[in-house]
Amino acid sequence: MSKLRILLVGASGTLGRAVAAELGQRHEIIPAGRSADIKIDLTDPASIVAALKAAGPLDAVVSAAGSVAFKPLSDIGPATIDTSVYGIGLRDKLMGQVNLALAARDVLKDGGSITLTTGVLTTDLIVAGSSATMVNCAVEGFVRAAAIELPRGIRINAVSPTVLTESMEGYGPFFRGFKPVPAAEAAMGFSRSVEGAETGRVYTIV
Amino acid sequence: MSKLRILLVGASGTLGRAVAAELGQRHEIIPAGRSADIKIDLTDPASIVAALKAAGPLDAVVSAAGSVAFKPLSDIGPATIDTSVYGIGLRDKLMGQVNLALAARDVLKDGGSITLTTGVLTTDLIVAGSSATMVNCAVEGFVRAAAIELPRGIRINAVSPTVLTESMEGYGPFFRGFKPVPAAEAAMGFSRSVEGAETGRVYTIV
Repeated sequence: MSKLRILLVGASGTLGRAVAAELGQRHEIIPAGRSADIKIDLTDPASIVAALKAAGPLDAVVSAAGSVAFKPLSDIGPATIDTSVYGIGLRDKLMGQVNLALAARDVLKDGGSITLTTGVLTTDLIVAGSSATMVNCAVEGFVRAAAIELPRGIRINAVSPTVLTESMEGYGPFFRGFKPVPAAEAAMGFSRSVEGAETGRVYTIV
Repeated sequence: MSKLRILLVGASGTLGRAVAAELGQRHEIIPAGRSADIKIDLTDPASIVAALKAAGPLDAVVSAAGSVAFKPLSDIGPATIDTSVYGIGLRDKLMGQVNLALAARDVLKDGGSITLTTGVLTTDLIVAGSSATMVNCAVEGFVRAAAIELPRGIRINAVSPTVLTESMEGYGPFFRGFKPVPAAEAAMGFSRSVEGAETGRVYTIV
């Protein structure tokens, strides 16, 4: 496999750094994020399009980013997307990654790949996790559906890691009994997506 | 089982009429919808809260409603929720049903039930179906997640029917090769949810 040019969104995060360390051994990583040279704000479609343009020719676009809110269901009432706690994840982790994929579709080289991030709460349920579960399920649905419609041999997959060892200090209380995985292990899912040939897959890392 | 009071949203639709015919044999159905006595607009959280208040004491809230847009992926570009074609389903079929569930949680009798509708595109993919798949997956994620946090023995399930025989004239071109089911058969999933004892389930009707 020749050296690929890979745009990595969320490059400075715990997961993003591990993805850069894994894929950077064999490929060129172009970091993007709120504080990277290539600025990108997933909640702003124009910034996504601009970032992809600034990155130049790309073989792969990888997202290791996306925020959701954690709140007990008992504290959530009926509200519009604009005011609901669910709106945070729907705008950021869902539509941010969906828009990244749609923009990537228009600029990736033939046979390029798109890799998004979901997470273990797709299938494993915790108190205060209803937004994460909803949003992760939506992202995975989009990935499977988009895979059959993408043009020019472009592939799309998701990586769904469980809680990261490096994140246990902050997230531990939400994830009692969950066996964490090192970010370096989660990064292998991104390697399978970018360097493999599958499409419409979710790589579950537990 | 004693006679239940069931609020049915989308009572005048193809699926809603079949649900009313099935559950109305044994229970009291209170129809709600844009043209029913009890007015409800799923995109308006205040109208949902008002409808549930107007309905009086309830043992079950059932949604046989929810719109999504169908559009080929090639015609969808990066956009905010406000302007994206995905926003239609996220506001209506997703957040409309989520808000209905959250409002129902606050008014249902102890041990009451909530039943939402998804659809076959959760798992089966078609061209122009990426919004339906995304939104259905999000609703099913919410149902599974909310089930572990609902108070007072309140249950929540979803029914996921394939394309209805009665809808094939309009939807047929999208669903070539799909074996349709009569709406009366899909209605049995609602019976299982309302009259059964499970929670966090998706009843797939194919």
